[in-house]
Amino acid sequence: MNLLLLRSDEILPDGTARLRGRRLLHAREVLRLAPGDALRAGVLGGLLGTAEVLRLDGEEMVLRPSLTEPPPPRPGVDLLLALPRPKALRKVLPAAASLGVDRLVLVNAARVEKSYFDSKTLEAEAMRDLLVLGLEQARDTRPPEVLLRQRFRPFVEDEVEGLWPDASRLLAHPGAGAPPPRTAGRRVIAIGPEGGWVPFELELLGRQGFSPFSFGPRTLRVEVALPYALGFTAR
Amino acid sequence: MNLLLLRSDEILPDGTARLRGRRLLHAREVLRLAPGDALRAGVLGGLLGTAEVLRLDGEEMVLRPSLTEPPPPRPGVDLLLALPRPKALRKVLPAAASLGVDRLVLVNAARVEKSYFDSKTLEAEAMRDLLVLGLEQARDTRPPEVLLRQRFRPFVEDEVEGLWPDASRLLAHPGAGAPPPRTAGRRVIAIGPEGGWVPFELELLGRQGFSPFSFGPRTLRVEVALPYALGFTAR
Repeated sequence: MNLLLLRSDEILPDGTARLRGRRLLHAREVLRLAPGDALRAGVLGGLLGTAEVLRLDGEEMVLRPSLTEPPPPRPGVDLLLALPRPKALRKVLPAAASLGVDRLVLVNAARVEKSYFDSKTLEAEAMRDLLVLGLEQARDTRPPEVLLRQRFRPFVEDEVEGLWPDASRLLAHPGAGAPPPRTAGRRVIAIGPEGGWVPFELELLGRQGFSPFSFGPRTLRVEVALPYALGFTAR
Repeated sequence: MNLLLLRSDEILPDGTARLRGRRLLHAREVLRLAPGDALRAGVLGGLLGTAEVLRLDGEEMVLRPSLTEPPPPRPGVDLLLALPRPKALRKVLPAAASLGVDRLVLVNAARVEKSYFDSKTLEAEAMRDLLVLGLEQARDTRPPEVLLRQRFRPFVEDEVEGLWPDASRLLAHPGAGAPPPRTAGRRVIAIGPEGGWVPFELELLGRQGFSPFSFGPRTLRVEVALPYALGFTAR
């Protein structure tokens, strides 16, 4: 935890915050903080700064945050992911948050197992907790917006143009010939399920302006492909 | 498992291989193979091709491999990693293998916890199993060479020059100003422990020609930083 993240409703009218649970435990046992110490802090969705420890015991930690800095700049990347299996999703969510992804669309695809949509990892609180882990790691306050879409075709036909009017639309596909372009502009990267996109999906995404790219013959796990693709396409 | 990997000693004099355990289970329950089917196969450290299923039951699977293709090209990257905590190492090893890293040096550093060196993950068989997972994923047969070095200074002073005479030596360091160069040549990327390299380590690596770089203010987990750095530095 490189940053202590508060929710705005945790900052009380007197300007302090009182924390229990995971963050208290981390402050005591890992950071070994004591009254008078300061630590990096931020408010979810808002500013960064420090927080002074006013009191800390087995019950709670009382902090006085002083948050005046903007969160770090973002690379201008959105992701369109075929919903990964829950175990992979638990890696992808913190990774995407730590990399400063703006928006993450989790979409159904022919080779996505239906049961993945029943995963507890998709519950709002579970997702938020995983995104917060990534933000704490990267010292950011703004989580990616996550959209879940159970129907591939209506999503691609009706929503893609509105979501990404000006973005370079890139499609990871092991069969494609060329590596992706590097761009300083806004980009959206589509990454398929474990078995890949089926031809119908490739065609539909292609009609919406997604250009296929490949990094060569290696098929990577989504949690590896994602940061690799972000690094590769960065300018 | 996109590739079934055999050890060379598993190929019998009659040209067949008999498998049990994890690979048998995968072939039956995930791939649902039957006699007559063929699957992608390779021999650890050697060639790729296919294997025909001759027999498959609850006891064993008998295959006839036909391996004639070279494994995929490699990006020419070595890694120098401060030994990560075991949980992270279990992600890093398959990721490095799937990305085609040639050599992975796991080195001690001031902010590496001593207990990490006692991890069972560092036992030869455990490491090989994790590397094989990455090779199976990426359809490669050649695992990275892994070196473990418990003493930082002698390693850097005595071994770096011999290991990487012609490589671009890059050092991930959040404090550095510039992003890394992109290079088509051989490169070695050093990534520090969770708390970062200490000044003494930075200085010693600097004296051996490691140029610090940074991707900006975001501190990434090693399992995210690694593929991001490989993607970013690729030409």
